[in-house]
Amino acid sequence: MRIALGLSYDGSNFNGWQTQPDGMSVQDELQRALTEFTKQPSTIWCAGRTDAGVHATAQVIHLDTTVNRAAQNWVRGLNSLLPKSIAVQWAINVPDTFNARFSAISRQYTYVLIEHSVRPAHLNNLIAWSHQRLDVLSMHHAAQTLVGTHDFSAFRSAQCQAASPIRAVHTISVERKGALILMQICANAFLHHMVRNIMGSLMQIGKGKWTSEKLATVLNSRDRKQNARTFEPNGLYLTAVSYPPEFNLPTENNALPWWQLADETDSCYATHAH
Amino acid sequence: MRIALGLSYDGSNFNGWQTQPDGMSVQDELQRALTEFTKQPSTIWCAGRTDAGVHATAQVIHLDTTVNRAAQNWVRGLNSLLPKSIAVQWAINVPDTFNARFSAISRQYTYVLIEHSVRPAHLNNLIAWSHQRLDVLSMHHAAQTLVGTHDFSAFRSAQCQAASPIRAVHTISVERKGALILMQICANAFLHHMVRNIMGSLMQIGKGKWTSEKLATVLNSRDRKQNARTFEPNGLYLTAVSYPPEFNLPTENNALPWWQLADETDSCYATHAH
Repeated sequence: MRIALGLSYDGSNFNGWQTQPDGMSVQDELQRALTEFTKQPSTIWCAGRTDAGVHATAQVIHLDTTVNRAAQNWVRGLNSLLPKSIAVQWAINVPDTFNARFSAISRQYTYVLIEHSVRPAHLNNLIAWSHQRLDVLSMHHAAQTLVGTHDFSAFRSAQCQAASPIRAVHTISVERKGALILMQICANAFLHHMVRNIMGSLMQIGKGKWTSEKLATVLNSRDRKQNARTFEPNGLYLTAVSYPPEFNLPTENNALPWWQLADETDSCYATHAH
Repeated sequence: MRIALGLSYDGSNFNGWQTQPDGMSVQDELQRALTEFTKQPSTIWCAGRTDAGVHATAQVIHLDTTVNRAAQNWVRGLNSLLPKSIAVQWAINVPDTFNARFSAISRQYTYVLIEHSVRPAHLNNLIAWSHQRLDVLSMHHAAQTLVGTHDFSAFRSAQCQAASPIRAVHTISVERKGALILMQICANAFLHHMVRNIMGSLMQIGKGKWTSEKLATVLNSRDRKQNARTFEPNGLYLTAVSYPPEFNLPTENNALPWWQLADETDSCYATHAH
């Protein structure tokens, strides 16, 4: 049978999602825990292959297994075998037509940034930092240039293995929330380093070094060399993956991002946590 | 001249505040940075000698030096020499009558706890975790038993070197904020492990294992063996130290705790950060 799992992780000390020869990836850790739990080999598919240092509150994976356990046992059993920086949030049986990667309709990533004269001592890899004042409204307005279906070659790393550079960005927003700046982007899928390269270019706009016309020119150039530096992975999270409703994934059970934990208005969490 | 510094740190990877033979304490790191910055030896005094694994958003220290630099140079210079998990927030000249430890009127500590069926994958050492539902209102009410001047021998570790077990607790509160539970305690000073032992006993009340009468009995017994287990250091922060107003410490420049970063109502931070 096919099982889907919801996963949150702190990517600080991993070489990204994808399995590595040194075994230091999130997938490697999950693979080890799964093999120990199920006593059988299994192949894992994931919704978003996060980079080294990138985090997730809502990664989705699937695997095939003959092991039949209650959802709660999958969650507790795997969490007892996983390192502290990875936690399974939910488990569910899915039909064989479900594929964590190919069934996904869209992925959402969120950058969390603090703007302060002094670097943050807490949340080291969990937050990006700017000592410079950013023009968040200009960032938000310029970012709308990227919405729609475009050739994102200018935002793609040299290592990107995707067959096509065309991606559809559904929404993108940049806004302040208290002392934080949140950049949130939702697209059908992302090229390698695409979110980090978009954030790199938006930082140029926030600092007043680029106009929004410049961003449009870079996009249209389809030339990575025209673009700004890839932004740091610190503070970047895979925060949502959406699937067709017929699969009924319990995404409301995902880990609440830390920047929403103290949010009094989010009563949904208090409810579903028990 | 005498300099006071405001300090925030992530205590996860340190053996507490106080200097250690292996050099792995916050004080050791600060001492190294200060020696490199001032090119002279100096003795550091601090307001609260935090335990191994305990964090601070508002530690205060002082030192004597002949080095004359602008406040901003102390902050930037030291931060460039300190590890990422320690940051100087502010610096100020103080009169020789100021002593970070002995001039302090009160210290405030805050425990941050998440109550959830699944352990948190982010914020590993920055948050305490309970998989069990806690009766926060009972914890808050029972905690009021501890307010006032008492012999806190029952809440003191065997290693405590204080001359007297008498301390004055000014305020203590336990409350929910969104998905978090915050325990905040303010006292003139604390015995070794006092906050962690108070949290240990309040957890017993939260789980319904102790009544508030039991807490009073434990306090009055003055016997550590009557008390609950010392609670974990994860999620514990030194969040404020208060001094007589004549010293004019710029405490409003302290690091905002991470659980307040997204707080829209805290406009003070947005103002003073620039």
